[in-house]
Amino acid sequence: MKKQILTTALLVFMFVGCTAQTTIKLPEPQKTGGMPLMEALNNRKTQRNFSERELSQQQLSNLLWAATGVNREDGRMTAPTASNHQQMVIFVALKNGVYQYFPQTHELKLHLAGDHRLVFARQQPTFNAPVLLAFVSDWDKMTRYDNDETKKKYSKTDAGNISQNVYLYCASEGMATVAIGNFDAELFSKTLKLGSNYYPVINQAVGFPQ
Amino acid sequence: MKKQILTTALLVFMFVGCTAQTTIKLPEPQKTGGMPLMEALNNRKTQRNFSERELSQQQLSNLLWAATGVNREDGRMTAPTASNHQQMVIFVALKNGVYQYFPQTHELKLHLAGDHRLVFARQQPTFNAPVLLAFVSDWDKMTRYDNDETKKKYSKTDAGNISQNVYLYCASEGMATVAIGNFDAELFSKTLKLGSNYYPVINQAVGFPQ
Repeated sequence: MKKQILTTALLVFMFVGCTAQTTIKLPEPQKTGGMPLMEALNNRKTQRNFSERELSQQQLSNLLWAATGVNREDGRMTAPTASNHQQMVIFVALKNGVYQYFPQTHELKLHLAGDHRLVFARQQPTFNAPVLLAFVSDWDKMTRYDNDETKKKYSKTDAGNISQNVYLYCASEGMATVAIGNFDAELFSKTLKLGSNYYPVINQAVGFPQ
Repeated sequence: MKKQILTTALLVFMFVGCTAQTTIKLPEPQKTGGMPLMEALNNRKTQRNFSERELSQQQLSNLLWAATGVNREDGRMTAPTASNHQQMVIFVALKNGVYQYFPQTHELKLHLAGDHRLVFARQQPTFNAPVLLAFVSDWDKMTRYDNDETKKKYSKTDAGNISQNVYLYCASEGMATVAIGNFDAELFSKTLKLGSNYYPVINQAVGFPQ
């Protein structure tokens, strides 16, 4: 038991250590287990207050795979995208940096060093969560649509799909989460130096309940 | 076994009978069981071809509860809505009529008699599904927002949340489903005689794979 705690503590320490790693190869996601679906739905709720507890690397791996990981050999994912554009990008703000999640290789690549959780969440107490996610649509990939209204529409419904996966994963794991719609999208794009093709939709805080 | 088949056939017959009932009191949803969440996520996919098989009343009950049923004593639901406006309305097109789902009483009320699945889906083969859902936002309930852009945004992300619940329920039950974004919203609103406060977002076909 003690050994397990020490191992977990070591993993967490390695993971949230002061130096942001350029690439984090996440452990294989656990594609079995979890709460029976109807019970996860019954436990689905919004929680805005987070404890100090960090996610383990396995939990972060599972969370991102649940959100929009690859679940088929052809690269298709746990969340649908309109016309299978696969245009949704997840940025992950941890204490030490902002990472981009790459579903096909299941890894995180450093996008911006430093603690930028406040830019993802704006308000107390949400930005104290150990993990802040941003669901951003890359319009360059939405090649089948020729007008912005259509791109906006499906960027938003597709972000909703991902967000619900996160809600259910958190319900299943006893974790806390809240979707954040009213963040400052302009400040967010500026801070992350995103090109005009990136359309931020909603963010989401994830951690453990206080 | 034979008795079970006969009972099921009888239930299905009673349910999809030619005369549309004004109110269908759904059986209690089953809030336990289903596939473990990670497996449901791993099985999540889009399927566009449907068999003739109908849903039982219990399956319809579970489907609608999973989509946006009440999961807490204060009336909160399996899918979040922005600022807890609870503005999302689900219309359900069956062969015999279009119904509105009322989560608080878990019942369906007849909105319009007749088979209008084509209006929900427009294209072959999707409208052959036994159940067509529409996720419509009632802007009269979104009282905290003072501009249409904000109402549009959250109507869409909230519809995405509901849609993902349907995807996962179908994955868990071996059912087929596809979200339909490109239906004719004007024809839809006109056919259902919806007031201008109703904003249709996306529809979704549900049934069994061919």
